[in-house]
Amino acid sequence: MSVNRQLCLKRNIQQGEPVSLDLFEVREAPLPEPAAGEFLVKTAALGFSPAQRAYLMGTASRFHAPVDLGEVMRGRGVGRVMASRHPDFREGDVVACSTGWQDYSIQSGDVSGMLVKTLQRVSDPQQPLHLHLGILGSSGFSAYFGFLDIGRPQAGDTVVVSAAAGGVGSIVCQIARLKGCRVVGIAGGAEKCAWLKQVVGVDEAIDYKADDLDQKFQEYCPSGIDVYFDNVGGDTLDAAMKNIALRGRAVICGMISTEYHEPPLPGPRYYYNLIYKRARMEGFFVWDYHEQFPAAEKELIDWYKAGDLKPTEVVYQGLLSAPDALQSLFSGADCGIRVVDC
Amino acid sequence: MSVNRQLCLKRNIQQGEPVSLDLFEVREAPLPEPAAGEFLVKTAALGFSPAQRAYLMGTASRFHAPVDLGEVMRGRGVGRVMASRHPDFREGDVVACSTGWQDYSIQSGDVSGMLVKTLQRVSDPQQPLHLHLGILGSSGFSAYFGFLDIGRPQAGDTVVVSAAAGGVGSIVCQIARLKGCRVVGIAGGAEKCAWLKQVVGVDEAIDYKADDLDQKFQEYCPSGIDVYFDNVGGDTLDAAMKNIALRGRAVICGMISTEYHEPPLPGPRYYYNLIYKRARMEGFFVWDYHEQFPAAEKELIDWYKAGDLKPTEVVYQGLLSAPDALQSLFSGADCGIRVVDC
Repeated sequence: MSVNRQLCLKRNIQQGEPVSLDLFEVREAPLPEPAAGEFLVKTAALGFSPAQRAYLMGTASRFHAPVDLGEVMRGRGVGRVMASRHPDFREGDVVACSTGWQDYSIQSGDVSGMLVKTLQRVSDPQQPLHLHLGILGSSGFSAYFGFLDIGRPQAGDTVVVSAAAGGVGSIVCQIARLKGCRVVGIAGGAEKCAWLKQVVGVDEAIDYKADDLDQKFQEYCPSGIDVYFDNVGGDTLDAAMKNIALRGRAVICGMISTEYHEPPLPGPRYYYNLIYKRARMEGFFVWDYHEQFPAAEKELIDWYKAGDLKPTEVVYQGLLSAPDALQSLFSGADCGIRVVDC
Repeated sequence: MSVNRQLCLKRNIQQGEPVSLDLFEVREAPLPEPAAGEFLVKTAALGFSPAQRAYLMGTASRFHAPVDLGEVMRGRGVGRVMASRHPDFREGDVVACSTGWQDYSIQSGDVSGMLVKTLQRVSDPQQPLHLHLGILGSSGFSAYFGFLDIGRPQAGDTVVVSAAAGGVGSIVCQIARLKGCRVVGIAGGAEKCAWLKQVVGVDEAIDYKADDLDQKFQEYCPSGIDVYFDNVGGDTLDAAMKNIALRGRAVICGMISTEYHEPPLPGPRYYYNLIYKRARMEGFFVWDYHEQFPAAEKELIDWYKAGDLKPTEVVYQGLLSAPDALQSLFSGADCGIRVVDC
């Protein structure tokens, strides 16, 4: 119990190389002690985001600071406060925060920095705690604020979601359905499309690996796409903008297909429909909504308890499975949200 | 007085060919007579827009219906009602509408179709009437609604306007200044840049033919571009999106540099700043604001009378100069709004 296992970066990843445990040294550090104003968190579960792969490249981009060699891998988790010398946090509190890939972390509760600003108290902890990294946590918040605040859906709207079988996308689909929208999900492969229809409950699923996107949009969205929630960019965004509805909204949440290239790849060619359709493309950062997280959490939990929002978490077991869980975002092996129970 | 001169299309224009009077037959038609529910308008002045060149290509695009051979050239004008059999319009009324390139036109006042929907009664006619095609008319309305409603400027914002020496751009610059913004105008050539500073009153002018846009944006917009009003698309939009400010707004008004290509040219590469800067790109159609035109006209006239909004009209003389006036939008020969006094 007094050992803190840490996954520390041993070498940088190459372009195209999968993330694996080989990249990391498993260091056994002593249990850290909170100083005045700090508290100790025991990691209960880890969550994953595509940006984490960029941290391993060893090159600073406009957007991502690399994880240095020897440093503990950066990442978000949920955990319990084990000891506290911070006035606002007590032993037993549950928080979601930047834990890193380790058993224990020291948190300051300071909200001045970007990383620490993401600290969030879980006001109504559900079991299992990893739900607070998924449908009830950061993935849920991204879907909730991106779709509702930027997408501004109306009942009856046709909503298209890319990477719909992914963590954020699968929640957007469910919220869209809750709001009375027709939902078209895009995913790669027949299996994921079947999962979208059966588990997530979309009205139509498009297999981008087999189908012609433009033709499917015309078939499934004959009046155009009212809200397009984009997680991928590239050709999918192109096809969606080509089929955007009058006064349609494209919510730019991610662009995993182009991996945030620098210099940038060609942008959405059909952006001229912004004029012809009086349409809007807008991006967002979920952390900007930090102060509204508690209210969102309450609504997400209500939907979950009512059975209207289904968990889609794929659970990996144990801290050492974290590299595989991250890699699965890119290999497309799983449907839903990846978490590691530690 | 009883002859109606009409510029009728004789042959289609080729890619890159300038618009000239040669393309048209000057037909002398009899004065038309209004039927019940119609009225006769004598054209006082003609206005011009880049889209008109596309009408002459002879090919229907997604966006522009061609003018057929033998048909009167389509275009917007302002004129007086000479005779009326319409209950809502009386002799002497001044209207802006789709007059075509001719001395007289029949109007129905019907607002059901796209072309006729653009009929607008000029409630407070100023002399010369061509101002109602410029700062007090459709160019003014495009600048007014696009900048204020889509751009949502705040005092102190840094505003960048492309094609700032053009019809709409030169008005956006002036309204931005009126709203307490810092204004950076982009135009081609030292002469236009000098005009922007001396006549339009921008804070900084960028010559896109001589300057490096990215470097100039960094110099003139050190905190980023809060509102980018885009009339050109292409590389200029790219550079602007690269330098967009946190929560910046790109108003997509036109894309003359890419001429609305089909299939479309690469879109804005730096659209990923929509995420990183929580920014927005949005297009608009000025005719959507049709019902708000009278209120806008009133405010524009107040600014004009107070000397805060300066006319930038370049006046061509006589109906037969219309082809040259249209061509001047593309040759970059003039600064400001082109009109023809008929």
